[in-house]
Amino acid sequence: MTETADTRPGWLTSQELESIRARMPILYVQAVPVRVDEAGQVTHVGLLLRATPDGSFHRSVVSGRVLYHERVRDALLRHLEKDLGPVALPRVPASPQPFTVAEYFPTRGVTPFHDSRQHAVAMAYIVPVAGDCQPRQDALDLVWFTVQEAAGPQLHAEMAGGEDVLLRQALAHVGHIP
Amino acid sequence: MTETADTRPGWLTSQELESIRARMPILYVQAVPVRVDEAGQVTHVGLLLRATPDGSFHRSVVSGRVLYHERVRDALLRHLEKDLGPVALPRVPASPQPFTVAEYFPTRGVTPFHDSRQHAVAMAYIVPVAGDCQPRQDALDLVWFTVQEAAGPQLHAEMAGGEDVLLRQALAHVGHIP
Amino acid sequence: MTETADTRPGWLTSQELESIRARMPILYVQAVPVRVDEAGQVTHVGLLLRATPDGSFHRSVVSGRVLYHERVRDALLRHLEKDLGPVALPRVPASPQPFTVAEYFPTRGVTPFHDSRQHAVAMAYIVPVAGDCQPRQDALDLVWFTVQEAAGPQLHAEMAGGEDVLLRQALAHVGHIP
Amino acid sequence: MTETADTRPGWLTSQELESIRARMPILYVQAVPVRVDEAGQVTHVGLLLRATPDGSFHRSVVSGRVLYHERVRDALLRHLEKDLGPVALPRVPASPQPFTVAEYFPTRGVTPFHDSRQHAVAMAYIVPVAGDCQPRQDALDLVWFTVQEAAGPQLHAEMAGGEDVLLRQALAHVGHIP
Repeated sequence: MTETADTRPGWLTSQELESIRARMPILYVQAVPVRVDEAGQVTHVGLLLRATPDGSFHRSVVSGRVLYHERVRDALLRHLEKDLGPVALPRVPASPQPFTVAEYFPTRGVTPFHDSRQHAVAMAYIVPVAGDCQPRQDALDLVWFTVQEAAGPQLHAEMAGGEDVLLRQALAHVGHIP
Repeated sequence: MTETADTRPGWLTSQELESIRARMPILYVQAVPVRVDEAGQVTHVGLLLRATPDGSFHRSVVSGRVLYHERVRDALLRHLEKDLGPVALPRVPASPQPFTVAEYFPTRGVTPFHDSRQHAVAMAYIVPVAGDCQPRQDALDLVWFTVQEAAGPQLHAEMAGGEDVLLRQALAHVGHIP
Repeated sequence: MTETADTRPGWLTSQELESIRARMPILYVQAVPVRVDEAGQVTHVGLLLRATPDGSFHRSVVSGRVLYHERVRDALLRHLEKDLGPVALPRVPASPQPFTVAEYFPTRGVTPFHDSRQHAVAMAYIVPVAGDCQPRQDALDLVWFTVQEAAGPQLHAEMAGGEDVLLRQALAHVGHIP
Repeated sequence: MTETADTRPGWLTSQELESIRARMPILYVQAVPVRVDEAGQVTHVGLLLRATPDGSFHRSVVSGRVLYHERVRDALLRHLEKDLGPVALPRVPASPQPFTVAEYFPTRGVTPFHDSRQHAVAMAYIVPVAGDCQPRQDALDLVWFTVQEAAGPQLHAEMAGGEDVLLRQALAHVGHIP
């Protein structure tokens, strides 16, 4: 799972966070940004383009940690604003029920999801976005793909840690071919 | 379940529909209109006020039949527009997964839901509504209640056919006290 | 969508049903039979093998109509017993919330689902099956596939009407790669 | 939220856990044990009776922390076995999608849920239990209530931290009157 540095780091130093990451599952939220038509049908999926430390690129959904004393929906809103900018107008779901829970293990093969740094458990949501997106921080770009493109193997090859599986689970949940 | 006359009656006469109603479950959609805050939290629930043939009044959610060759999401949109007017700006959910399925039986006690006219099976959705609501047709008014009011016994006494149960199930689904 | 003839045809002659099918959406249930391990993880998916009138074969999930005055969960149980036999021990879900709603249109392309005979709306459920399955009626066999096999294109090519999409949506819902 | 001491405490001392609890949301699972009939309909809800340090009693659902490198479904199974004994035969859901997410804050009023010790985020599941339950550890008893009893105010008064709200949300999710 890729995410930008936290702009509001809470009450933990990097060192403390590293120490906890080795001993506790860390609670995340993930949001799949989508464009919907008037009838609510998903037409496009938005993916961030990020540069990795080794100089390659990959695409990802919006991800981030839930902080101490922060509601899940506030964490969603904060990470959406952080990654999509202040005028994206995301519509955070009314229900706290995620469409799935993605469990990222430091060991490969336990689940379809992997994160070498930590054991992260992400509650994942579909988030319709109505406004203009201006990726910030370390995201280079946000690209909207049609649902057909989003279901294709080419795009999946550009994703990491099993986020392609999450993307396909999102497509399935909104009634499309995953 | 109360609903207004269909504005697009499909290919069935009233008589034919009556005949089918006695022999087939009829597919419905129901929508609980809500107001949400910036973080997606439900703050208010909208209920229609309708006059019944016997001169009394009751409150109800948006309900209606799915027509032949109509998508569920188009049926939702049509009934929302019919009951809330053309500038209500309803946000029909991206996912076809309803928060519950309410089964209205002509016999009382099979489920919490009852409809003396028919066996109706309603897929129920929470629908955030952003615009102005102008109830049309036989609805006298649309009133927005706080989630606390919506959970109260007084309001439930003004609902019929078990729609108070549906309302409370909707509150539960969006994380409120039902 | 393929299903066996109804063993309890309700109060409709074939001719009446044909007439209604051309003018009303018909309510269906679909069940994806699965084997689960002790922790509830899906390990296998069960698919029926059926012969089609033209002499070919295809694989399908359990499908069938909801009858007048029949609860959705009773319809599920009836069709599971009809297709899997009396000792399959299916565990019909406690919640009426389906994992998706599959809309089969007589016209191709409206949704990923197609049924030339009718407009059918199917509430779809994952159903763990613990007992022995003995396919009955027109099903030739029930075969259990691993989740890896169930996600493969070969199996999908043997399914009709978009049921391969439903199968993949089911895999996505239970946390597998669709 | 009440839970028994962890039998497998992971790699954290009590002191370390206390320190983290003041600075990170802690990931929990909660399970509402239910009895279902042949058609999957919930007939009873099981609640644990526990003694509190101040000598009073209260009723609760099954709750517990997710440990490092533990899958959510394994955490569910572990806590169910810990609280209900080794022959309860719980049926952990096939889907990782919880019916709700309950957010317990150390501050009252942020959500309906409260835990003075910590900020806990619990993914909540309905778990049908088929076998015999023998409460262990600090639970004095497990009592099965009918769904009518489970919806009543008397029982809710015996629950703490907002677990009565979670119970009612569970009833709503399985189609009962909450």
